Amino acid sequence: MRKKLDPSEISQRITSLPDWKAENGRLLRAFSFPDFKSALDFVNRAGAIAEEMGHHPDIQLGWGRAAFEISTHDAGGITDNDFELARRIDGIAGALK
Amino acid sequence: MRKKLDPSEISQRITSLPDWKAENGRLLRAFSFPDFKSALDFVNRAGAIAEEMGHHPDIQLGWGRAAFEISTHDAGGITDNDFELARRIDGIAGALK
Repeated sequence: MRKKLDPSEISQRITSLPDWKAENGRLLRAFSFPDFKSALDFVNRAGAIAEEMGHHPDIQLGWGRAAFEISTHDAGGITDNDFELARRIDGIAGALK
Repeated sequence: MRKKLDPSEISQRITSLPDWKAENGRLLRAFSFPDFKSALDFVNRAGAIAEEMGHHPDIQLGWGRAAFEISTHDAGGITDNDFELARRIDGIAGALK
């Protein structure tokens, strides 16, 4: 099982993901889009990564918006696997620009 | 613009959608699935309907779960359009059984 990171490790690692915040044992980021379909397309890309990693975020999807919450329930907090998923989601966001 | 339904109209119409509840001016239903991919597939089917109707729900997607919130922001509550979207989402749920 992945090891839960302690607060100092989280503070350090999140500097490499400036658009995410760590809150209540979860990594959080919301993305904006021009319409519903673009948001859903993004969720599908993120979903493909989640399936590949075997690690799944909670997603709030609405018109022009997709927000992600990432944590490792088994570990009771944020693990390096969560940072990896966040980093890969940022990667597809970068590819959209 | 669609007309906001009054509480008695909502109470009456929701009898035809027993798996939904009306709460705080929104129609709510959560669906369970055996895995993430099934939940995402369902969200894609619901998303196609939303695009066709030009009326979009808020969706919470997670491993084995997709929950929908439907309301008409412009009308400040629940309209017949919301009931139509809920009914059509139920239709794809029925088709999965």
